[in-house]
Amino acid sequence: MLSVRSATVDDSPLIADMIRELAAYERQQDEVTARADNLARDGFGPHPFFECVIAEWDGSPAGFAFYYFIYSTWKGAPGLHLEDLFVRAPFRGKGIGKAFLAHLARVAVARNCYGIRWHVLAWNQDAINFYRALGATVLEDWRAVRLDGDALENLAREDGQRE
Amino acid sequence: MLSVRSATVDDSPLIADMIRELAAYERQQDEVTARADNLARDGFGPHPFFECVIAEWDGSPAGFAFYYFIYSTWKGAPGLHLEDLFVRAPFRGKGIGKAFLAHLARVAVARNCYGIRWHVLAWNQDAINFYRALGATVLEDWRAVRLDGDALENLAREDGQRE
Repeated sequence: MLSVRSATVDDSPLIADMIRELAAYERQQDEVTARADNLARDGFGPHPFFECVIAEWDGSPAGFAFYYFIYSTWKGAPGLHLEDLFVRAPFRGKGIGKAFLAHLARVAVARNCYGIRWHVLAWNQDAINFYRALGATVLEDWRAVRLDGDALENLAREDGQRE
Repeated sequence: MLSVRSATVDDSPLIADMIRELAAYERQQDEVTARADNLARDGFGPHPFFECVIAEWDGSPAGFAFYYFIYSTWKGAPGLHLEDLFVRAPFRGKGIGKAFLAHLARVAVARNCYGIRWHVLAWNQDAINFYRALGATVLEDWRAVRLDGDALENLAREDGQRE
């Protein structure tokens, strides 16, 4: 039987494990530097950067959904951004993915969010079809941009004040 | 002369004005429902959903940058998401856009963020060239997905618990 519960600070090692499992599934495990103590610090203090829910199947940890709140300047309302959704291999095909999304929809409505957002790989047509069947819209016109590493450090050293 | 300062709750009407000006520039003004009181409530309470900085040119409000914190499960660190960046027409060509990005890079570094993220329209080659010149990467493989309105309400009514 499935249950979905909010993560606590004691789940930080479990969440870190499942982040690495998801990264391995996406063949990106070498890019993961997150550790349990990062998650404990950033997710469970007085001003948490994220929230996380854990699915259990007959009491066994079966997956996680990791999200945080964003904000729409058009709507003047927060939104919920789903960063990661992962179901461990033995527990797939049981409706856990949809149960997570339904749970997040309830969180979004309860917190007065205008909606849920996430990202999908453009070539993952199975996922896109699943999301569209739920009524989601793929924003074809937009691309995400990232600035980090040396470029971030260099830009931070620029003098922002002009005369 | 340019200065960039943090917005306060008293700037909520100015921010709402500039959000509408940006939306008009993008021909989306009909989609804006945000009002100053939404922004005052959501951005300046004990748990703000966003932060905002305002550029002034010789004391006149010249533009704004609107951002919030996100989180990378790979990095185990927060990131800064730039939601809106806008410079009023009379003040363009003075380097204010770059000054905003440099300011945000300093905020990101000071808050231990791994980087800055934002979205760009896929056909806006001038903007993409400008961002790439700063060292930013366009994530070509990813698409944003949005679920809201009736689809969100319907999903929230689904029973998420399965046997």
